[in-house]
This record gives sequence, C-alpha cells and structure tokens, in this order.
Amino acid sequence: MINKLVAKIKKTEAPIVVGLDPTLKFIPEHILKKAYAEYGETLKAVGEAVWQYNKGIIDNTYDLIPAVKPQIAMYEQFGIEGLIAYQKTVEYCKEKDLVVIGDIKRGDIGSTSTAYAIGHLGKVKVGSNEYRGFDTDFVTVNPYLGSDGVNPFIDVCKEEKKGIFVLVKTSNPSSGEFQDRIIDGKPLYEWVGEKVDEWGKQCMGDDYSYVGAVVGATYPEMGKVLRKVMPKSYILVPGYGAQGGTGKDLVHFFNEDGLGAIVNSSRGIIAAYQQEKYAKYGALNYADASRAAVVDMIDDLKNALK
Amino acid sequence: MINKLVAKIKKTEAPIVVGLDPTLKFIPEHILKKAYAEYGETLKAVGEAVWQYNKGIIDNTYDLIPAVKPQIAMYEQFGIEGLIAYQKTVEYCKEKDLVVIGDIKRGDIGSTSTAYAIGHLGKVKVGSNEYRGFDTDFVTVNPYLGSDGVNPFIDVCKEEKKGIFVLVKTSNPSSGEFQDRIIDGKPLYEWVGEKVDEWGKQCMGDDYSYVGAVVGATYPEMGKVLRKVMPKSYILVPGYGAQGGTGKDLVHFFNEDGLGAIVNSSRGIIAAYQQEKYAKYGALNYADASRAAVVDMIDDLKNALK
Repeated sequence: MINKLVAKIKKTEAPIVVGLDPTLKFIPEHILKKAYAEYGETLKAVGEAVWQYNKGIIDNTYDLIPAVKPQIAMYEQFGIEGLIAYQKTVEYCKEKDLVVIGDIKRGDIGSTSTAYAIGHLGKVKVGSNEYRGFDTDFVTVNPYLGSDGVNPFIDVCKEEKKGIFVLVKTSNPSSGEFQDRIIDGKPLYEWVGEKVDEWGKQCMGDDYSYVGAVVGATYPEMGKVLRKVMPKSYILVPGYGAQGGTGKDLVHFFNEDGLGAIVNSSRGIIAAYQQEKYAKYGALNYADASRAAVVDMIDDLKNALK
Repeated sequence: MINKLVAKIKKTEAPIVVGLDPTLKFIPEHILKKAYAEYGETLKAVGEAVWQYNKGIIDNTYDLIPAVKPQIAMYEQFGIEGLIAYQKTVEYCKEKDLVVIGDIKRGDIGSTSTAYAIGHLGKVKVGSNEYRGFDTDFVTVNPYLGSDGVNPFIDVCKEEKKGIFVLVKTSNPSSGEFQDRIIDGKPLYEWVGEKVDEWGKQCMGDDYSYVGAVVGATYPEMGKVLRKVMPKSYILVPGYGAQGGTGKDLVHFFNEDGLGAIVNSSRGIIAAYQQEKYAKYGALNYADASRAAVVDMIDDLKNALK
C-alpha cells in the first residue's frame, strides 16, 4: 500500500491528503434538512447527512488527490450511526481508488492492539467465512505503550501489505509537554522517531517503509530533524491550514527525491465554503469550494517545494 | 461517578472490575452455535454471541462487583456489529447499576478529543434533541499529546459528573521503552503521574478525583511510588491474573483508607471455565465459573490487604 500511495502521489503531483472530519457545523443546511426530513432529528439522520456531505467532497476531489484521512472521532461522536457513515465513507473512497488513512490513534497492550489491527486493517474468521471490519489502508498508532503495542499492527500490515503512521511529534500546542522532554540528551520524539525507523526496516516497500510517522506542520524545525532520523518513513503531516502551518514550513519534511511526506488539510478543504476566500461558491456548491481549495493547496505546496 | 464507584466498592467490599473483553476463543460453543443457526456465519451472529456471552457473565456476577470494563478493541475487531454488542453491553451493565469503564485509550488534539469525549461520555445535540453515543461512566485516556488532548475529556466529565483514567504506567512488557525513560532525574511515568494529580485537582469528588490513572499490577514498585504522587486519584490496575500480577503485589496501590485502587481481571474471570481450576463447571455453565472466579479474586485481595 505504501507503493500505491507513492505512485499516486507521483501521478497526481499532489502530496496531500484530505481530512474527512465532518462536524455538524460544517455540513451545509440543505444536506441536513433533507436528512432530517427523511429520518427526523435523529442520529440516523446525522449519519446520512455526514455520508452525503463526504460523498459530495469525494466526488469533486478524488481525481486530484492520492488519499483521504477520515478522523474516526468525528464519526464516533455520533455513536453507531456515525460509525456506519465512517464505514460507508471508507468503502466509497476505495471504490474511487483513493488510499484511505484511518486516523484512529489506537494503541494498547499486545493482544488488544491485535484486535484493533484486525478490525481496521485485517480480517476476522467467522466459521468458514472471513470478514473485514473497517478495512482502511493505513491507520495512525499511538506509541506510548512501546514496541509490543505497535508490533501487532506491523504483523497485520505485513500480511495485508498495508501500513501505519506512528505518532512522533503531534501538531497540537501542548504536544511538547511530554514529547519534547529531554532523555539522555535528546527529546522523547526523537527516541520515538528512532523506533519508527527501526520498526520500519522490518517491512519495506520499494522505496519507503510500511511504517510511517506523524509529525505536525506546526513544528517545522523538529520536522527537519525527524526527516533525517527516519529517512525511509513517510511522514504524515497534520496542522496545515487551520492549525497554522503553511507550505513554506513544510519543505524540510520532504526528502531530496521530492517525496517522503504527505500533508493533511481537513477544515481548510471540507469547510472551504465557510471561508471568505471561497464564499462565492455558497453552501449549495460546497463541494466546488472544496475542489478550489484543493487546487490552491496543491499550488501552495508546489511553490514551496520548487 | 467517582463517588458512586467508591460507594459501590465499599458496599461490595470488592475493589475489582471485571474486564468484558470477549474473543471468539472464549465464547462457549453452545452460544456460538445458536447464533450461527440464527444468523449464519456472519458478523451479526458474532455480535449476538458476544452480547449473549457477556449477558451471562453480567447476570451471574453483578451483585458481587462494583464495576465492569469492556475493552472496546475486542468489539471493534468485529466492525459495526461488534460495536452494537459493545453498546448493548454498556446499556445492560448500567441497568444492573454497575459502573462502566470504557477501555478506549483515546487521545488526540483538542477538537478531536472533544469529539471522543462527547461520543463516549457526553451527549450530542441534533436539532432540538440530545443523544448519547456510547454513554459509559468512565473512559481510559492516552496522555501522549499532553494537556490539550486530555482537557476536553475533563471538561465533559465536569459537565456529566463522569471520570477518566489516564494511562500512566501500562502493564505490558515493553511499557518501559518510553514510559521508564529518565527526564530530569525522574521517569516519564512519574511526570505523567504528576500531571494526573494536577488535572485531578480541578475536579474532585468527595474523597477522590474524577481523574484517575492506569498503573499495571505487573509493576508493583512503581505503583508504590505513583500512589504517593497522585494521592487523590483512583488507580485502575490491569495485569492481575493472566498477565502475572497477584494480590500481594497490589497492596501498595491502595491508600491507608483501604481505597484508591480498583483491580481489573479479564480472561481470568470471563474465561474461567477454560482454566483447570474451574473446569468442573464446563462450558455450559461458564457464567458460574466466572462467579466462582470473582469470589476467589475478592478473597485473594482481601487476604492481601489485611
């Protein structure tokens, strides 16, 4: 799957991933109204609205981008009906040949991580049948529990030729509280980065590893260091746009081959129609606004990476 | 909810929590067969079997114990149908007046943690209605992202009078890889423990805080230190039984009031019938074996805490 991701990035010339992180505030009125008319003011209606909203964005951007990253929390907030919308979204994106990164940030003791890995990347045997729970191509993983919390994901990745992105340095303001603390002369995030490099060597694709890392756009200097610590790991970069990162901050997340990083934008794309810049599209044409925002983001990154 | 947990622990004289972590290996043949007969070899059948299996255990133990802790990964592995079983289990346990600790180990940037907190502890507004996604009483939270990944959970806890247990020192063999690393003379888990104490002071129940901690039974010496670092935080202690912890290891997780810790056992109770000690019950009476294992665990802890 890392090979497919790299190939699609090369083909689209767009090292970007669209974060499908729906909240009720973002969903245009006409979609919500239609769903409420059909199902009442229920979670079922919200699930349907989330799905229709996502479908509009996917239909209008899938030819420009290599990948999407649904943030499962935004679906879990609506319980079972939200998760049904998550599952539909994942399936539809795969039909459109997009690489799907499930942003689930799971991580637990070994036997429990195995269950998460099966549910999100692998398959489960039921009698003589096999089923897949959520079936994303990549997931994000939290490293706090150490190797035996991460290895079960890697085992399933090897079997399924899928991948993970391990949280190394997150984009949020307080990420330094623990991640930046100095241990034997180096910050914790560097130690985690070294582990990512070590884990990644076990499962290499053609040029990059099945094991990538999450490093926030909001910390460009740390991205520069971590790029060298994990040369064969793709870096998933959140924090562009709404969280404050810009194209020029991102140069050092990439390798000299122009590859090695994929930049996420969520709100900046899926709720573009709510920004002044794209207001002319209006809520009815929200998906066109998203497409315009994708085009602008690709340009911004191209200029920055020149 | 921390007050209710403490009151129920005092009433049952049982500082224990039963981990409802179903896997196909644990579910007795007769339950699986019945579900397959009704729904075929499908995920729907597995969901039904998981739910019936849990119900048997709950019906046979609820009067002895204060709380249960379903591990959501064990349900997520079966996709949507698994999560429906999780939801049914949570609801049923609450009907039985058990305190329900959702072992979800979530944690993300602020806006995303808010969504998780809403989905698992809070409520969401849909038009003029309010709904609850999974509605557990406590959840476990991963601290790797720092305060702004944890605070959204605390905000919802204050509103709902619910609680969290933050991962401090986990029970797995490789937990030390990052958690034990020394920062300014103290291991990372102690720094996290100090934060738990700080977070906890914002939201106190009568004697203990809404903010508790997870510390593995497998590291009793560290439990002793952490008990003092976070005097007002309840400690949720996994790792008893199947993972190797015993009653005598647990003494120092408790305060002098005999309170302050709640010990989890999963496999040791829910799959007791598969152990030689309880084999006489047989698979048909698996829930009686679970009850016997609960009684033995309560005795083991009582003796240890004398």
